[in-house]
Amino acid sequence: MADTPLDLTLDAARLTAQLVDFPSESGKEKSLADAIEAALRDLPHLAVDRYGNNVVARTRLGRQERVILAGHIDTVPIAGNVPSRLDEDGALWGCGTCDMKSGVAVQLRIAATVPEPNRDLTFVFYDNEEVEAHLNGLGHVVDAHPDWLEGDFAVLLEPSDGQVEGGCQGTLRVELGTRGERAHSARSWMGSNAIHAAAPVLARLAAYEPRYPVIDGLEYREGLNAVRISGGVAGNVIPDECVVTVNFRYAPDRTEEEAIAHVHDVFADCGVEEFTVVDHSGGALPGLSHPAAAAFIEAVGGIPQPKYGWTDVSRFSALGVPAVNYGPGNPHLAHKRDERVETAKILAGEERLRAWLTS
Amino acid sequence: MADTPLDLTLDAARLTAQLVDFPSESGKEKSLADAIEAALRDLPHLAVDRYGNNVVARTRLGRQERVILAGHIDTVPIAGNVPSRLDEDGALWGCGTCDMKSGVAVQLRIAATVPEPNRDLTFVFYDNEEVEAHLNGLGHVVDAHPDWLEGDFAVLLEPSDGQVEGGCQGTLRVELGTRGERAHSARSWMGSNAIHAAAPVLARLAAYEPRYPVIDGLEYREGLNAVRISGGVAGNVIPDECVVTVNFRYAPDRTEEEAIAHVHDVFADCGVEEFTVVDHSGGALPGLSHPAAAAFIEAVGGIPQPKYGWTDVSRFSALGVPAVNYGPGNPHLAHKRDERVETAKILAGEERLRAWLTS
Repeated sequence: MADTPLDLTLDAARLTAQLVDFPSESGKEKSLADAIEAALRDLPHLAVDRYGNNVVARTRLGRQERVILAGHIDTVPIAGNVPSRLDEDGALWGCGTCDMKSGVAVQLRIAATVPEPNRDLTFVFYDNEEVEAHLNGLGHVVDAHPDWLEGDFAVLLEPSDGQVEGGCQGTLRVELGTRGERAHSARSWMGSNAIHAAAPVLARLAAYEPRYPVIDGLEYREGLNAVRISGGVAGNVIPDECVVTVNFRYAPDRTEEEAIAHVHDVFADCGVEEFTVVDHSGGALPGLSHPAAAAFIEAVGGIPQPKYGWTDVSRFSALGVPAVNYGPGNPHLAHKRDERVETAKILAGEERLRAWLTS
Repeated sequence: MADTPLDLTLDAARLTAQLVDFPSESGKEKSLADAIEAALRDLPHLAVDRYGNNVVARTRLGRQERVILAGHIDTVPIAGNVPSRLDEDGALWGCGTCDMKSGVAVQLRIAATVPEPNRDLTFVFYDNEEVEAHLNGLGHVVDAHPDWLEGDFAVLLEPSDGQVEGGCQGTLRVELGTRGERAHSARSWMGSNAIHAAAPVLARLAAYEPRYPVIDGLEYREGLNAVRISGGVAGNVIPDECVVTVNFRYAPDRTEEEAIAHVHDVFADCGVEEFTVVDHSGGALPGLSHPAAAAFIEAVGGIPQPKYGWTDVSRFSALGVPAVNYGPGNPHLAHKRDERVETAKILAGEERLRAWLTS
């Protein structure tokens, strides 16, 4: 169905099927971006901009608040699960059904059917979310056209099973290196053992007590874990190097700098000779106390949950825009060969967003 | 010079040069074994046997004691350092000069020039010492013809810098595995971390106090060391497995079973879920109190030293034959591109063995 126009008169569930049948693996989003741009340009109440394969469309009604609805249009590699298939129980199967073409369909339906929303709206469709962070289209728009992303509140339609997930935790990876001196293991007293030198690092990790801070009513759960350890030269050599890679998942009340300082402090007296940050993405505050967010939660219902994983809401947070995840897909089904979404949840998501934006 | 007859009328230094110029990397010893066998068969006072590329020659004088002189005829790979070269300071350079064709030359010179020794003599020349243990020619002779190796005392002419090195330490490698349960690192409380579970293992290693037992007047030095550690699945996954490989170098007053039991005891309460012996070679008692050994030490002089590394003396020990290392090469020069031996030490070694066997 690629290269055919999108039909925004379909309901969000049927539109999801049309989007799923329009393959758009990461790096191959151009045709779908073209189709989305063309469909949006047919809507006279929207101003449409494009940067690469990223499309941004905005109302210009002069409302007091501006809300952003954002979603990525790429998918993980197709695994024999396209075209889509609707089963008798109303589940739509296929690559991207859950993550996150059902969310994109809801965005497009709101764009097409709510020409006079009670808040100004900005729709963001971006590429390359499923691959390395430096390719992420939202990040590229942040860098090149931050003015396109101005707003008071953002909803990212990533799969959250129809629940509001507030903010996201930060994730920091650090390599902790200990050093020794090589020697033949038959004469070990001639050297010093870098693996033994890592004993205090592991002891500190095993004893670490994570915080469970409550922010805007949501309980976050931090965690500090070794995700890799390596050391050793040969079976008869005292090793001169050992590296423990730790991953700190932290609540969004810490800044990136505070997170690094915390990990540094935890291991301050553990004999670590190299401390290297290898990967870092800051968290995002839930921002649920913002009036737009409060009205959103009131409208869509349910009890907001904290987001433990890292998502692009963090990019909005870095721009000063509070953001939440709210999408129809079940996150546990994302990236799976048997990926699917309940069409009833897509329709419910569309209705709740429409209710919030037209009440 | 390969395929030319060996000239046993040359002194041991010149004979070393002839042997070095006769390439015999591990697995390619046949020509040299042929030449050694042919040279020994020319000596009427010796009975010669051959098994593969291993040659054994024995006197049959009915003496009260029988002494074994043993050496391997293979070398590590040649590294542009053949043919040999004699420098102005009397050092002979080339692959195998030190490890251990200088020792083999001494064996051959004693075989040729001491037809009526005061102790019966057994000369053993074997292949594949520099490669995997299961290829070792001495081991093959032990298995196939243990009667060829009967004796009261053995001298292995491995490089020991002209000092007597008694016995050898055992070496045991064990993998200690800890287990956990995988989870996404953003939800680490859903799993358990196998790397953290290894903390008590490293703490125990770091705190380990090795024994320095004195055996037959020689001080051995044990050591228990991690030689490898590995664990980790991905940067965002709580790892479910961590393996620490430890190498226990132990004094020869422990049996192999006792060594395993000791390592098991050391980590008994450390949460180790898999204990796997991956490699084990027992030690060898120095046996210096045996009359033949005492006479040998008296004759060659110097103060015996313990051998920390593992050598083939252990194979003799396993047969009930006390054994020492005594060779002209400096062990620190073995396996190096600039391998060399002082010719004066080769000649001194030959003279001292002759003095011991003819006094």
